[in-house]
Amino acid sequence: MAPAARPDTATLLVSCPDRRGIVAALAQVLHGHGANILESDQHTDREARLFFQRIHFDCEGLLSDRLTLERAIGEVGERLSMTWRLAWSDHVKRMAIFVSRTDHCLYDLLLRHQAGELPCEIPVIVSNHPDFERVARQFEIPYRHVPVDAKNKREQEQRELALLREERIDLVVLARYMQVLSEEFLTGLGRPVINIHHSFLPAFSGGKPYHQAYERGVKLIGATAHYATADLDEGPIIEQDVIRASHRHGIDELVRKGRDVERSVLSRAVRWHLEDRVLVYGNKTVVFG
Amino acid sequence: MAPAARPDTATLLVSCPDRRGIVAALAQVLHGHGANILESDQHTDREARLFFQRIHFDCEGLLSDRLTLERAIGEVGERLSMTWRLAWSDHVKRMAIFVSRTDHCLYDLLLRHQAGELPCEIPVIVSNHPDFERVARQFEIPYRHVPVDAKNKREQEQRELALLREERIDLVVLARYMQVLSEEFLTGLGRPVINIHHSFLPAFSGGKPYHQAYERGVKLIGATAHYATADLDEGPIIEQDVIRASHRHGIDELVRKGRDVERSVLSRAVRWHLEDRVLVYGNKTVVFG
Amino acid sequence: MAPAARPDTATLLVSCPDRRGIVAALAQVLHGHGANILESDQHTDREARLFFQRIHFDCEGLLSDRLTLERAIGEVGERLSMTWRLAWSDHVKRMAIFVSRTDHCLYDLLLRHQAGELPCEIPVIVSNHPDFERVARQFEIPYRHVPVDAKNKREQEQRELALLREERIDLVVLARYMQVLSEEFLTGLGRPVINIHHSFLPAFSGGKPYHQAYERGVKLIGATAHYATADLDEGPIIEQDVIRASHRHGIDELVRKGRDVERSVLSRAVRWHLEDRVLVYGNKTVVFG
Amino acid sequence: MAPAARPDTATLLVSCPDRRGIVAALAQVLHGHGANILESDQHTDREARLFFQRIHFDCEGLLSDRLTLERAIGEVGERLSMTWRLAWSDHVKRMAIFVSRTDHCLYDLLLRHQAGELPCEIPVIVSNHPDFERVARQFEIPYRHVPVDAKNKREQEQRELALLREERIDLVVLARYMQVLSEEFLTGLGRPVINIHHSFLPAFSGGKPYHQAYERGVKLIGATAHYATADLDEGPIIEQDVIRASHRHGIDELVRKGRDVERSVLSRAVRWHLEDRVLVYGNKTVVFG
Repeated sequence: MAPAARPDTATLLVSCPDRRGIVAALAQVLHGHGANILESDQHTDREARLFFQRIHFDCEGLLSDRLTLERAIGEVGERLSMTWRLAWSDHVKRMAIFVSRTDHCLYDLLLRHQAGELPCEIPVIVSNHPDFERVARQFEIPYRHVPVDAKNKREQEQRELALLREERIDLVVLARYMQVLSEEFLTGLGRPVINIHHSFLPAFSGGKPYHQAYERGVKLIGATAHYATADLDEGPIIEQDVIRASHRHGIDELVRKGRDVERSVLSRAVRWHLEDRVLVYGNKTVVFG
Repeated sequence: MAPAARPDTATLLVSCPDRRGIVAALAQVLHGHGANILESDQHTDREARLFFQRIHFDCEGLLSDRLTLERAIGEVGERLSMTWRLAWSDHVKRMAIFVSRTDHCLYDLLLRHQAGELPCEIPVIVSNHPDFERVARQFEIPYRHVPVDAKNKREQEQRELALLREERIDLVVLARYMQVLSEEFLTGLGRPVINIHHSFLPAFSGGKPYHQAYERGVKLIGATAHYATADLDEGPIIEQDVIRASHRHGIDELVRKGRDVERSVLSRAVRWHLEDRVLVYGNKTVVFG
Repeated sequence: MAPAARPDTATLLVSCPDRRGIVAALAQVLHGHGANILESDQHTDREARLFFQRIHFDCEGLLSDRLTLERAIGEVGERLSMTWRLAWSDHVKRMAIFVSRTDHCLYDLLLRHQAGELPCEIPVIVSNHPDFERVARQFEIPYRHVPVDAKNKREQEQRELALLREERIDLVVLARYMQVLSEEFLTGLGRPVINIHHSFLPAFSGGKPYHQAYERGVKLIGATAHYATADLDEGPIIEQDVIRASHRHGIDELVRKGRDVERSVLSRAVRWHLEDRVLVYGNKTVVFG
Repeated sequence: MAPAARPDTATLLVSCPDRRGIVAALAQVLHGHGANILESDQHTDREARLFFQRIHFDCEGLLSDRLTLERAIGEVGERLSMTWRLAWSDHVKRMAIFVSRTDHCLYDLLLRHQAGELPCEIPVIVSNHPDFERVARQFEIPYRHVPVDAKNKREQEQRELALLREERIDLVVLARYMQVLSEEFLTGLGRPVINIHHSFLPAFSGGKPYHQAYERGVKLIGATAHYATADLDEGPIIEQDVIRASHRHGIDELVRKGRDVERSVLSRAVRWHLEDRVLVYGNKTVVFG
């Protein structure tokens, strides 16, 4: 069940070089068109001299049509050298989930979606294994099995790309998908991809992070949700969390404990993205709470 | 050592009935007077139909004098039925600490002040016991011993009031002060008083909360920083936190563990108050992070 | 899927008046019968002068049969006035889940069970509503709809009792079951019942805890898993946890945030119970980690 | 103030190859000599096939003298190829604190010591800077200023070694001491050294961890207390913790927030060491809670 669309609001995300008067200029243009600001949050990176703002506003009393408002924002944007993005709440984002053979993140996303916590549609689940077709069916979501091996990888990525385009996907979530996506795929997709890495990055990047954590004898294990980039495990971090471990925990138990933190970290990151709370700059994110 | 004054900024705290255009009106008046908004945060309580905003702005390029700006804000305020407060960063708040016979909260406040974490002056420490005079001396702060018993309480509170007025105190912090302050004192003072209660209120209000927690067998113990009101333990909550306990912990160990959470909760609440991040309404607070 | 039985271990839970030599006496009797101690944990409540111990041991090299070992423990137990319980790991506990109309705790238990985290069988789900029959079917667990109203309550509880007896249930878990169980039911059942209360007890006991929390303006919301007793919300606490809230969260959002902490607190409490880690005494628990 | 000595208890720490009957053998020898076991905790590393145990026992009813008991333990130890250590609670450990130019960890240790939380004596504070002599004087602890530069390092380390030997130091704590200790020093000392690293190791090892964390855009910052070894930042980890950060926090604020987690992590690690709760094996620790 997709959550009830909230047809009368929109969210503006803005970044630009810092200067005086940005807040006033944006408040003015929105107010002038009859938009009522419901939430507003801003951040200035003083070192990088960059300004960021998220404005969530009510469109019920809009005095003009959307196009006119967008054009007006565009004019302010040009004057202030802004990068900006306007998301209307009646455009529900379309999210594809990729999964391999562990289902805890998949279930967490599906259950939260069902409970109305994730404002999106999920038109497809893609997997390189057939294991979770039954789960997909329970939630009435099409399941596409796209087996990948060393030989067919490029070809299969092209199939996936075609599928994602056909489904007009806005966001791909790798819910413990154990295939590395090629740079060609990421570029071809041109849409954000969120990945969950099962460690507190940058600690234990690469494969088998729980084995690494066990060997090093750490007292906390973590998980990191980040945007996927061609540099594996190096993309902008959206959210991280940890859970306490001790000498008592063998690798199996670290894996079990880790599932809890992985699923909650990934779901938070996905929700924030869907609510247009995340701005990327350089290799970092601004997450408006 | 008082932290370096930040002479060129100010913070505006506003609450008013919710309606359209408040954000734009305030942004406009500030921008029009040459103020540059550094941080802005807002909140709407939709049930109570109240609007709250905190705006932290740079005054360096102010085009008018402060009085003119205040008058302009006052006009907007009147139009929008606002309650508002403007704090100039070169007015350093003056904080008095009250303490009885446990020193962990006292030390935490003094050390953070010394490290520049608390933007205030501490002109006096007041205690109903002589125990911590030596501590006060180490930090070069005057220590006033005002013994209180059942008979002299009213008289001693009057002495304290006179002292606090003389020192032009803006804020009183009860850092584990074990005397109940009378309504007469609180009214007479007319300044905010922050108290630390050693439980997760409303659980275990009243005396001996760690004994109560031990008897009930809870698995977490907590602390609550709140504004003091005549209704003991019932004032608006600013901050709370908890720490894990178990069957292993006797009352002494709960007390020991509790010290860590008490001191950090109190210091956070005090810092937020000093940074003009807290707005009280009804029996609640808005804390802008 | 029930987790792989671990046929060769057992867990001994013991409580008795504190005195010298208990540890040695138990170690001796186990060692003498060829049991190899894998884990051992103990606790002394010095005020109550009570001793508690949990011993998890390997039975592979047992020199006698089980009955002989039980008799030997029984003799030590009698000598030391012990209450004791011996759980063989090949006796898999049988757990019934009661649920009303919110499914997050139900799903969490079912998914963890499926992942092998909960060492039990789940022969039946009981509900006063028909809503989750489909969920039960997905996990291939029988679903019994037992509607309850003011008039038929006693009669329906008798039906439930009969059902639980027939299914030889060892543990009942109330996974957000919104009916108060009568003392007659609890006594008639004679088996432990674990409930999840959606607040940090003793704060906000009774109904609508999130509404109460919202009214009081607390900065953390919590959940408490406890054994059910005839005194509602007063039974021995097994586990508690909290999650941070703020002025931004309306009641709906407190409810949403609360789901995460409810499900994890309940699942931990259930797992600990199933692993024979929990001892009740008075109105408290010892939970061996 | 040193905490009241607890003269009638002792703690036995044991590690050995795993085999049957170790628990029984130790319980037997202690019981046979009249020791009453107050706490006992054990751990088996099944991969490494190693057994660890900590036994805290009451010596009031000891039937023999200490030497006889030690000899008896020694015999069991030899039979089972044990490494063991027996700490009598009336031997109060002597701890030296090394510090450079930040005082939060120093103060935290001194205040906890004063509050009776750390069972040790602190006969000396050593620093390569004169800054905190006044702090040492407040707590009535001798302060030794040993300036170190590239040229005199070896010579100064020799002075420090002589001093530590003279003071019969059992433990050195590096409370933000910014000099790398040479392998020669560590070997010469032959006593444990606990260091606090201001990151969640292995992330951000090396210098300026907060700058690294800021650059990488992590959402949590951490601290790690570990035993110092010649491989900087590679020694066995005793304790770690993290604190939430966001895009709002510049490097200065990460440093400020980090102080809280550094001091609490270091103090916990030191307390556990002083209470004989930590066993090192390979590059890991077992910490008995």
